[in-house]
Amino acid sequence: MAGTNSERVMLAEGPAIILVEPQLGENIGMVARAMANFGLAELRLVNPRDGWPSEKARSAAAKADHVIDGTKVFETLEEAIADLNFVYATTARHRDGFKPVRSPVTAAKTLRTKFRSGEKTGILFGREKSGLSNEDVALADEIVTFPVNPAFASLNIAQAVLLMSYEWMKSDIEDLHAVPFDAPEQPAATKDQVIGMFEHLEQALEARNYFHPPHKKPKLVENLRAVFTRRAFTTPEIHVIRGVITSLDRFSRPGQISKSEKAVAAEEGSDDDGSGKQ
Amino acid sequence: MAGTNSERVMLAEGPAIILVEPQLGENIGMVARAMANFGLAELRLVNPRDGWPSEKARSAAAKADHVIDGTKVFETLEEAIADLNFVYATTARHRDGFKPVRSPVTAAKTLRTKFRSGEKTGILFGREKSGLSNEDVALADEIVTFPVNPAFASLNIAQAVLLMSYEWMKSDIEDLHAVPFDAPEQPAATKDQVIGMFEHLEQALEARNYFHPPHKKPKLVENLRAVFTRRAFTTPEIHVIRGVITSLDRFSRPGQISKSEKAVAAEEGSDDDGSGKQ
Repeated sequence: MAGTNSERVMLAEGPAIILVEPQLGENIGMVARAMANFGLAELRLVNPRDGWPSEKARSAAAKADHVIDGTKVFETLEEAIADLNFVYATTARHRDGFKPVRSPVTAAKTLRTKFRSGEKTGILFGREKSGLSNEDVALADEIVTFPVNPAFASLNIAQAVLLMSYEWMKSDIEDLHAVPFDAPEQPAATKDQVIGMFEHLEQALEARNYFHPPHKKPKLVENLRAVFTRRAFTTPEIHVIRGVITSLDRFSRPGQISKSEKAVAAEEGSDDDGSGKQ
Repeated sequence: MAGTNSERVMLAEGPAIILVEPQLGENIGMVARAMANFGLAELRLVNPRDGWPSEKARSAAAKADHVIDGTKVFETLEEAIADLNFVYATTARHRDGFKPVRSPVTAAKTLRTKFRSGEKTGILFGREKSGLSNEDVALADEIVTFPVNPAFASLNIAQAVLLMSYEWMKSDIEDLHAVPFDAPEQPAATKDQVIGMFEHLEQALEARNYFHPPHKKPKLVENLRAVFTRRAFTTPEIHVIRGVITSLDRFSRPGQISKSEKAVAAEEGSDDDGSGKQ
């Protein structure tokens, strides 16, 4: 999807993403892209199988060059996390052990809190085929796992990084129902405007004998108004709807006899035709 | 990451995922995989560029064959959504218009509510390069957009589908801090156990003249206990720690004079060595 605005500030603070023995450059690139999407920039690789730098990674990063250029490579996981204060291990499998297991939401909140208090944090992601070893997990403070379909639980690294990066970004948003942009602000219509619209419509329908027989009119009006009050219209919307009514009311289809105009002209019109009613 | 348990029930209910004019079979496959990860199964394609079925899609789906096999192809978006009651359009761009814009969290909650009341829903995803057209968006009820880094806002289709599928799965979880598995249940230690551990440790240290000079002992004990009370230990953890203390206390390194054993034997030990203190 489009929508990038490169004039805005490039966000780049937060946990380091640490890939343990990643195999495919393509996956590393997709990880970099996912990080950039959600404002992360610090990528660390432990012993990448195909070496570094990687043209495949750069290509798959889809212009997240700042992440690729800043990537650091380490020989061991111990070295990769040496300067960090707090580390999560991501895993889909149950692990024996003493470590607390967190949801992505909780983990992201914890990372955000630690970030705000000046701690350096990281998130470990395992090998494409085998994930993190128990020895890797032992170096982490806590475990984070994803609420996946148990029958199809295998997430690739880039997807796992995407979800954690997304939750990281969300952890800075107080109102999770907020959106970065909204439909243009439109004043809600007043009841006067709504009722004016009703009368306009009912007059046009009346002229076509829509409310026939007369004793059914109250129910028909009620139904009609119910349909149009279920949504809270804005003023511009009322204008649109009234434009539609006006158009249908004033003008007949080419070739059609202009019953409405005759009807309006006669103020009471003829009631020989009920075709306006559905 | 590993962890799939294919004996469990395959989840497959929820909104249809509708890709409008997707180009690459690979992307369609990655979409199918992301859907399967989070329990969605109904994939619809509008006019896929390279036709259908697609071997590239099946390969990229990483065994989400049930999604690939059930995929339906339509010539127009109108046909693809004909049987649905409520449709979201995903977009990263601001659109003029009257449609409300929702966050993924809100959208997923709305979809879940409608699903529970028996409505059929769908989510539209646009072309790889150009997203959804204004005409496509006009057919949707509401818009959903992602809280991305404004400087790097471009998500690929599979990533966008992954995030919506993930939020769909989460919308069924009441406690967002819940996790599918947890560390083995361990009873929290009683204070008796904690204090027993303190006494064990302090005795072993006392025997090594750690608390020297004597007037500093209260402060040293206080510090020591503070370190070990910052975490709420479980009973098994206490056992582990006491095992460590016992081991350090009872046995000396090979070749080292067994000061601790002498000390314990003498009940008061010699205080000629402060090497146990750090």
